[in-house]
Amino acid sequence: MNIAIAGLGIIGGSYCKAFKSYTKHTVIGINRSPAVAQQALEEGAIDIAGTAEDLSRADVIILCMYPQACVDFVRENGQYIRSDAIVTDAAGIKRALCPQMKELAAQFGFTFVGSHPMAGKEKNGFEASEAELFAGASFLITPCGAPEEAVNVLAKLAREIGFGTVKITTPEEHDRMIAFTSQLPHVLACAYVLSPSCPNHNGFSAGSYRDVSRVANINARLWSELFLENREPLLEELRELHRNTKAIYDAVEASDKEALADLLERGHRVKQALGE
Amino acid sequence: MNIAIAGLGIIGGSYCKAFKSYTKHTVIGINRSPAVAQQALEEGAIDIAGTAEDLSRADVIILCMYPQACVDFVRENGQYIRSDAIVTDAAGIKRALCPQMKELAAQFGFTFVGSHPMAGKEKNGFEASEAELFAGASFLITPCGAPEEAVNVLAKLAREIGFGTVKITTPEEHDRMIAFTSQLPHVLACAYVLSPSCPNHNGFSAGSYRDVSRVANINARLWSELFLENREPLLEELRELHRNTKAIYDAVEASDKEALADLLERGHRVKQALGE
Repeated sequence: MNIAIAGLGIIGGSYCKAFKSYTKHTVIGINRSPAVAQQALEEGAIDIAGTAEDLSRADVIILCMYPQACVDFVRENGQYIRSDAIVTDAAGIKRALCPQMKELAAQFGFTFVGSHPMAGKEKNGFEASEAELFAGASFLITPCGAPEEAVNVLAKLAREIGFGTVKITTPEEHDRMIAFTSQLPHVLACAYVLSPSCPNHNGFSAGSYRDVSRVANINARLWSELFLENREPLLEELRELHRNTKAIYDAVEASDKEALADLLERGHRVKQALGE
Repeated sequence: MNIAIAGLGIIGGSYCKAFKSYTKHTVIGINRSPAVAQQALEEGAIDIAGTAEDLSRADVIILCMYPQACVDFVRENGQYIRSDAIVTDAAGIKRALCPQMKELAAQFGFTFVGSHPMAGKEKNGFEASEAELFAGASFLITPCGAPEEAVNVLAKLAREIGFGTVKITTPEEHDRMIAFTSQLPHVLACAYVLSPSCPNHNGFSAGSYRDVSRVANINARLWSELFLENREPLLEELRELHRNTKAIYDAVEASDKEALADLLERGHRVKQALGE
């Protein structure tokens, strides 16, 4: 198959490298700045450094840009996409994106299947990409009415490049769960490191500082867009978190050891029940 | 030297195994339940399975029990401690502990130096202990007026068993910093996993879920005691965190992309400035 990757940042670049490492598919790399596609070509991460017109050669197109940029890109270049092509994205939000992409799919005749590779790093850009980025990770698919055949093509590709789990879901469930598993930890990390204590942590810290603060090394522009496109689920998780930290705060303030131990024990039991 | 470790849980057990692996010191293990000391002896983690009376043979005594239990243990068994012995603890709070230990040191004639090995796991008990637990970790010392000589003995021992950093501090600075680097992440982890979304995270989660939730697998009894013995610094960090999550909440609620990106960017810059 010919696979076109549009947007050669960390995710797009990792898709290129993974397809080149693990499969025999032909990889067409497309990037706004052609220098990056050229670099990818020189490094052997892609077979062809293409432009939007080369979308016409692709059986599968993976859009690895910011959410709204995916929509804009297809709106501008949809005429190059074949009607038998499968188009997917890599965006971290789905409710705001999928209906727009479905509309464009109907307009231009291609098949759209939403997807979200649950992988990343605290670094950006092609230079941070790697063939192993998806090893063992979850690949979330929101079919949004696409034929099962197209969904299966994507699921098979995901397994070929090392994803550990393929999960079929709806945009609504996706966004609600991602608010908890991914967006909330990013909010917490940023809020955490804004404490005046943070710059002095060295020598006083260990694994728990490192783990909570890790993703504060954030791409602010991307995550602002992701948060605002998932406003209600994220706000609900933030309210829920506040209820729970407030309960612990109150128990500490009241020096109520029994209530405090009970709250911590509830947390412990959740992890135990999950076998973590 | 003869080193007595009192309390063979994960920390005490790891001290035993580390001293046996990396040094030629004689290790005396003392535990409330003698079966654990017997097991440690059989595994070669200690040289002698002792009782409180064997404290009289020790040049250095490391108390690896819950904070208040350290004080109670010394109050009951101080008569066995030699006046040339150095006694230290391993507790995660210092302001509440050090004055009591100083008093006991004056009463029984030994030298007390507070210390806190910044290492741990989400498991408890001797079976979770390991010789490598302290590799590269910080060893915090609160001398509390002890002679420099005694501080140096402890610092040297810490380096011998693999600690990466030795930091001298005061009980006040220790407790303030630990509220941020260690206690706050434990509160957050427990509050986080109490979300109704948590039991369904599987397949939707990746590194950021794993990292924030890790320490929710908590020893509720121990951490309740640690939190309540460090009430004010912990409450202050919780208020600070709430101010910062509230600012992000407000920006998301108002769909104020500029304010939101600015807050996230501030978090990003803190990590960048720390070179993390």
